[in-house]
Amino acid sequence: LSDLSQLVEERDLAGLQQWLQETDVFDIAEELSRLEPEDRAVAFRLLSKERALAVFEVLEPVHQQELLASLREPNVRELLEEMEPDDRARLFDEMPASIAKKLLEGLSPKERRLTSILLGYPENSTGRIMSPEFVSLRASMSVKDVMTRVRAHGKDAETVYTLPVTDEKLRLVGIISLRDLVLADPDENVGHIMTSKVYSAQADVDQEEPARLMREAGLIALPITDRENKLVGVLTFDDAMSVLEAEDTEDMLRSGGLEPLGRPYLSASIIRLARTRVVWLFVLIIAATFTVNVLKFFEHALDAVVTLSLFIPLLIDTGGNVGSQSATLIIRAMAVGEVRFSDFLLVLWRELKVGAMLGLMLGLIAYLPVLFFFGNRIALVVSFSMFSISTIAAFSGSMLPMLAKRVGVDPAVVSAPIITTLVDTTGLIIYFLIAMTVLGL
Amino acid sequence: LSDLSQLVEERDLAGLQQWLQETDVFDIAEELSRLEPEDRAVAFRLLSKERALAVFEVLEPVHQQELLASLREPNVRELLEEMEPDDRARLFDEMPASIAKKLLEGLSPKERRLTSILLGYPENSTGRIMSPEFVSLRASMSVKDVMTRVRAHGKDAETVYTLPVTDEKLRLVGIISLRDLVLADPDENVGHIMTSKVYSAQADVDQEEPARLMREAGLIALPITDRENKLVGVLTFDDAMSVLEAEDTEDMLRSGGLEPLGRPYLSASIIRLARTRVVWLFVLIIAATFTVNVLKFFEHALDAVVTLSLFIPLLIDTGGNVGSQSATLIIRAMAVGEVRFSDFLLVLWRELKVGAMLGLMLGLIAYLPVLFFFGNRIALVVSFSMFSISTIAAFSGSMLPMLAKRVGVDPAVVSAPIITTLVDTTGLIIYFLIAMTVLGL
Repeated sequence: LSDLSQLVEERDLAGLQQWLQETDVFDIAEELSRLEPEDRAVAFRLLSKERALAVFEVLEPVHQQELLASLREPNVRELLEEMEPDDRARLFDEMPASIAKKLLEGLSPKERRLTSILLGYPENSTGRIMSPEFVSLRASMSVKDVMTRVRAHGKDAETVYTLPVTDEKLRLVGIISLRDLVLADPDENVGHIMTSKVYSAQADVDQEEPARLMREAGLIALPITDRENKLVGVLTFDDAMSVLEAEDTEDMLRSGGLEPLGRPYLSASIIRLARTRVVWLFVLIIAATFTVNVLKFFEHALDAVVTLSLFIPLLIDTGGNVGSQSATLIIRAMAVGEVRFSDFLLVLWRELKVGAMLGLMLGLIAYLPVLFFFGNRIALVVSFSMFSISTIAAFSGSMLPMLAKRVGVDPAVVSAPIITTLVDTTGLIIYFLIAMTVLGL
Repeated sequence: LSDLSQLVEERDLAGLQQWLQETDVFDIAEELSRLEPEDRAVAFRLLSKERALAVFEVLEPVHQQELLASLREPNVRELLEEMEPDDRARLFDEMPASIAKKLLEGLSPKERRLTSILLGYPENSTGRIMSPEFVSLRASMSVKDVMTRVRAHGKDAETVYTLPVTDEKLRLVGIISLRDLVLADPDENVGHIMTSKVYSAQADVDQEEPARLMREAGLIALPITDRENKLVGVLTFDDAMSVLEAEDTEDMLRSGGLEPLGRPYLSASIIRLARTRVVWLFVLIIAATFTVNVLKFFEHALDAVVTLSLFIPLLIDTGGNVGSQSATLIIRAMAVGEVRFSDFLLVLWRELKVGAMLGLMLGLIAYLPVLFFFGNRIALVVSFSMFSISTIAAFSGSMLPMLAKRVGVDPAVVSAPIITTLVDTTGLIIYFLIAMTVLGL
């Protein structure tokens, strides 16, 4: 598999063609995305027409865009014409508006209309990723009629496994699965065998909502309606899975103090990588200057007992770690729906108890070695600080993400790095207050 | 929706029954899992037989187990008998072996056999979550024959949308989708319309592998074979989605310095929560004692210029943040397959450049304010340390997860907290070496 880059480098056309023929579409796409743009174009142009389309659809928008730029116009048009409307909308969305407009105009009227419908929905809304081509049924149809209809129109639809049933005003009244249709008596009425209590989602809600529903309930496809309950599309499980992957990526990166790159890691330039990180670092440095101020405030204590400075990293690391643990736990529990805002006080109380318990254990563990090397009073200061810092860290680590969600901010933004910096400042104040009391400074 | 707990509390049976009738299965399960075990049992027993099974299948194993304990034996047996074999295997897996064995013996011979097959595969292997009941075809069958077969056996199979085709020795030779069957001429041969280049996975590989493949390729179902390519089951997309959710949860929690809880957050006891966290904290504290030793080593410098201690938190926080960013980015890129070990040097070189660029910016930003308050020499020390620490942090933050993966350790384990602690120690050494040089200590 790893030979592709070598084949391209050696311009071994025969070898390339063989490789492209023998490899799975999905593996081709994966290997292509690891090549430099020019090499990728060389290899892509060698694909048979049918495979080229299949590979193209699997690529990331950023690579699709680069490829289009390297192809001749008729080929571009052909590729775009054959794409699924939702994939096409996603691609157009990432292009400069003027180019997208020109390409849109090159499409056939039908495909242009389908794409325009999707692009009419707000970014990140369900409407953007649904399929506007679907087979819909009426309750009065017989199973036999339905099968005829599926045979006639099933080729264009993205799925035929979940078929929505509507009334004469196109309002969703139920769904029926192809499995039930196949197992049913051909003369049976759709209305009798359809499921009328169905999950559905509105086209203007955030994509994450229906995607999580589909994962939890294990749905292959979900009918999408407008605000009047009129059927406008169908969301399929593969698009839902992509949304969830992107959401999880976003959560993870934000928890690590980064913004999503919007493209594969190896395709992002150094400048782009630095840009997605520097803003966060800058914010965190500003926050961390509080620690300088706190220490400056207690400089006389540090001056009197230099030993106190030795434990600063240990204590703030511990606080940061306990805080990150709580934040990570709560952010994930909220993301998968285990915890809601109504659990706020319950969660705070639980984390307070866990934090205190952890602080007690860590404080006890720290006591003996510090006693041995630095004496009883310093050991008391360190242990007692560790207990207090752990408790406060667990408390704020769980509180901040929940409050963030409440005011409409992604909880992952208020996670590890932010909490670490916040807990540092509070932790240092506590440490010095305890030290001054115990040591009588 | 949120009335359930109130209805149970008031023992309002009529209200409860109405609520249980009007609510979707999936929502019932979600609300039930938020109740106390006894209340959950009260509400569950009021469900109609059919709905009880549907709700039971959606619950987490820990709640299933609690419910079983509260039900009478015939009901337990009935519930277990009707479960999907893979869900049942998962439940048995989490029970004490003696109880699982007793319950297994209560099953019908057929269901017992299916469950035993799944339980025979290693934990976390694909065999555990596949469905051993499937409709399989021969290439020589006509489409008409197939439809008859689907109608006869389709009720028991977990999916009929992707049908595996085997030879006479049960070796996988292709797949055909129900959609293609419905669209095909009834007299056509399966061999002519099946796809013979198919994705499949072996039953003994880690679940994550086929699950990621299914997400990337958008597959509804994947044939699972043994090492001789004999068909042994089918993995469906809903089980794949659950695996990926669990994997992402595991990655996130480990990145935050925790082990997975194995149950919903609110169902975990305080003791369990503390236990999943204390081991990590303990390891990190041991690691953090290096910082105490480093500072002890440089105590004379601290003694001479107490001002140096003011910047300790700022510098180690910055190092920790840059390091976590790199680690998070690389861990996720590896998890979704964008980066492999063969990219090791490329990634290190990129992160080194990004780290240096970030360090340069942050060092420049820090210079002026420190100059203003603490003078030129301290400002030089802080800026230069910030540059060096950022570079090293980005470097080690990207290197460690890749090396971890290489030696078979989950990269997420070597992430934020570990890297923070490591970078702290290195960072402090660098800081003091620079300080001693610039300040001539």
